[in-house]
Amino acid sequence: MSIDPLVDFVTQQPVTTEARQIAADTLLDSLTCAIAATASGDRLVERLVRHGLDQGGTPEAAILTQSLQFPAQNAARINAAAIHALDFDDTTLTSWIGHPSAVLYGALLAVASRELATVGDVLDAWAIGFEVGARLGEAGGQESYQRGWHNTATLGTVAAAAAIARLLGFDADRAQAAIGLAATMSSGLKVAFGSDAKPLQVGQAAANAVLASDLAGQGLRTASDVLFARHGWLEALGVPDGQGLARFTDATADLGQRWDILDAGITFKLWPCCAYTHWAIEAALELRERVNTDQITSVTLHASETARATCRHDRPSNPADARFSLPATAAVALVEGWPSPQHFVGEQLPAGVRELIVRCNYAPAPDALPDWGGELTIEHRDGTILHSVVETPRGHQRRPLSAADMRAKFDAATAPLRASGRPAPEWDILYELIRTPDRRVDELLAAPLTGY
Amino acid sequence: MSIDPLVDFVTQQPVTTEARQIAADTLLDSLTCAIAATASGDRLVERLVRHGLDQGGTPEAAILTQSLQFPAQNAARINAAAIHALDFDDTTLTSWIGHPSAVLYGALLAVASRELATVGDVLDAWAIGFEVGARLGEAGGQESYQRGWHNTATLGTVAAAAAIARLLGFDADRAQAAIGLAATMSSGLKVAFGSDAKPLQVGQAAANAVLASDLAGQGLRTASDVLFARHGWLEALGVPDGQGLARFTDATADLGQRWDILDAGITFKLWPCCAYTHWAIEAALELRERVNTDQITSVTLHASETARATCRHDRPSNPADARFSLPATAAVALVEGWPSPQHFVGEQLPAGVRELIVRCNYAPAPDALPDWGGELTIEHRDGTILHSVVETPRGHQRRPLSAADMRAKFDAATAPLRASGRPAPEWDILYELIRTPDRRVDELLAAPLTGY
Repeated sequence: MSIDPLVDFVTQQPVTTEARQIAADTLLDSLTCAIAATASGDRLVERLVRHGLDQGGTPEAAILTQSLQFPAQNAARINAAAIHALDFDDTTLTSWIGHPSAVLYGALLAVASRELATVGDVLDAWAIGFEVGARLGEAGGQESYQRGWHNTATLGTVAAAAAIARLLGFDADRAQAAIGLAATMSSGLKVAFGSDAKPLQVGQAAANAVLASDLAGQGLRTASDVLFARHGWLEALGVPDGQGLARFTDATADLGQRWDILDAGITFKLWPCCAYTHWAIEAALELRERVNTDQITSVTLHASETARATCRHDRPSNPADARFSLPATAAVALVEGWPSPQHFVGEQLPAGVRELIVRCNYAPAPDALPDWGGELTIEHRDGTILHSVVETPRGHQRRPLSAADMRAKFDAATAPLRASGRPAPEWDILYELIRTPDRRVDELLAAPLTGY
Repeated sequence: MSIDPLVDFVTQQPVTTEARQIAADTLLDSLTCAIAATASGDRLVERLVRHGLDQGGTPEAAILTQSLQFPAQNAARINAAAIHALDFDDTTLTSWIGHPSAVLYGALLAVASRELATVGDVLDAWAIGFEVGARLGEAGGQESYQRGWHNTATLGTVAAAAAIARLLGFDADRAQAAIGLAATMSSGLKVAFGSDAKPLQVGQAAANAVLASDLAGQGLRTASDVLFARHGWLEALGVPDGQGLARFTDATADLGQRWDILDAGITFKLWPCCAYTHWAIEAALELRERVNTDQITSVTLHASETARATCRHDRPSNPADARFSLPATAAVALVEGWPSPQHFVGEQLPAGVRELIVRCNYAPAPDALPDWGGELTIEHRDGTILHSVVETPRGHQRRPLSAADMRAKFDAATAPLRASGRPAPEWDILYELIRTPDRRVDELLAAPLTGY
């Protein structure tokens, strides 16, 4: 066994029209998320931009959020952090168990800007990178995630390096080196969820993918079995000792014949917080009309173990941690209604939300529900009890959003710009650019800049 | 329990004179190793310098190996890779199970150059960073190393961020953020040993430590329990589920009362290859006068499991992999004599070495020997059998080199410069600078530059 099937896939596999179509949807949603982060005044992106300006360097790659250019590695860090800053970006709770587009587009847009590549090149490279991450996730994603690694960043570094190798037209030797070097740089921890470190480590994944592929292009090399060797990347991340090779072999056996993105789809988010909270939000929104929040004695969240381990902020002390809190997201939905980016920024949650959070508690989820589903039970002082079960929340890859939902997400993301009289990017222009394969990526990067 | 004892140690603990004295020894040895790498024409450093020039950026930090300045993050990458390029740099096979100075000085010299800090500041920060890495190694270093992580890079990122926090005089809040952000960036795999990726990932550790501390200084924050939370950094790296907190608490309990660097010491290397091969080299050198290499039928390496797992290149295909090969290092010592940097660069091992490697095989080490010891058995065609047992090789922290040994290492490292008529750095000048605490680090960085 060797890494060859993966490298052959990365360097040679034609991308299907269907996969490219989904890639176009993910690109527009990724731009929407970066716009939403900037429009809502997220501080992380602003600080990474300032850091980039302090560093200086060759202005070779335009970034997503401002009319500035940086070395591609630093541009990738800013792009990926911007797409992921609000936890509003696409995700898949199968295979990757993470956010593919933040790291893939974070890296690809930076390199494409430097290389004057086209939108079509980037969409193809995304499809290749998504599939590489999906197969590596099949090989070891469950264990690595449970062990504490943030797959978006760990798998993502390798997947993004593979995507860049495709974009740059690397031969097998350089593609293998890019993938292997990226594996030696991959990091990111779930324990950081809620803090600046979460989008930062996604930014690092994209930046490291650029570094790994650039150094591979310069001739740096590493062992060909980095991914699956005994005590190699897969086993270090949590695959049981000695099983790395078999897992890798199984997961890559039918590359090119089966596309995970076509079989499993991808989740686009309606709400800017952890995907494992979305069932609770949907259930809360459904019950909201019948609830009197002042009279609630308890809110019981029947949640999966995975959801509870991922959303560890039971009593979040700030809005950023609230993104990874089942009680806080349910309380926001019950008290404030539809959760928007503004609910998860600033210093403090609204008083009504904080008061409701302390009345929340947990119970095991019904066995029949998937990890991403749950049941909400609300008890009132007068004895009224309300229930809602959400098996698969809206937006989940098995319950996709409509085109109108995506457009509404974009309109909401750009609303703060329009409300403050700043020119906002236009859906029709972005939509058209993304569906014209031979347009240069730099045209796209120029388009969302209007107004900020 | 909180991270406070560690943060208090980093921000406030006075450094003892004895620890500072050892720090001075490690700094001179680190410079020796970087000089040896450059003088022997190592290609990795040259490529990282080229990458740094491509990136450009604010010329704020001088590097070790050339008269160039880069952003501190990129300077740290080059410095650390240069110190570690030949695997000639100091190491400790207890606590860290890795190379403390490459990552610590790689990062510290870059930041000190930017901040116009003194040699004394850097030596103190090294002592703090060494101890942080030692305690984190006590908490989880065995498991992480066995699992496949390269402690030098993983522990090293966190230790170097702590050292920088000390150098910059961070308060507790910023020091905690620097340490936590560094943990979310830590990576590096043992499977890369032998390839460009090994020194590169040490360079990445130093670069990420600079990035983490710079972003912490700008106000970025992460969870305070990143290191020891359930499924946090220690557990992700291999500490059994749920034991991270107890391990951290135990390992940091007597910080400031006990100094690992004083109790356990540090290993300075005589030979530029993995420390687990040094027993085999010493044994081979001891037997060499009595051996006729043409007549050898077998060389049996009685080695520990740890040594075999770390040195996985049984039949190395190139000189770089030979650094992590028990057969190759023993064969170099038997055929060529004293192993020098020149033996581990270039495209191919000498024919005589290659012929002897295929006659090498393994046997279990005697139970009484430590991981770093072993027994060599050489059989000749005429039936002559030679044995040599090395329990603890020369240079090991329990069998320290003399001052004359260190001077001889420096002279050998600079010999290629003198041989080619280039001016070489002078021991006396470096020695004096390192022992004058109020001299600026930039004076030291200027000193080794003479001639290349």
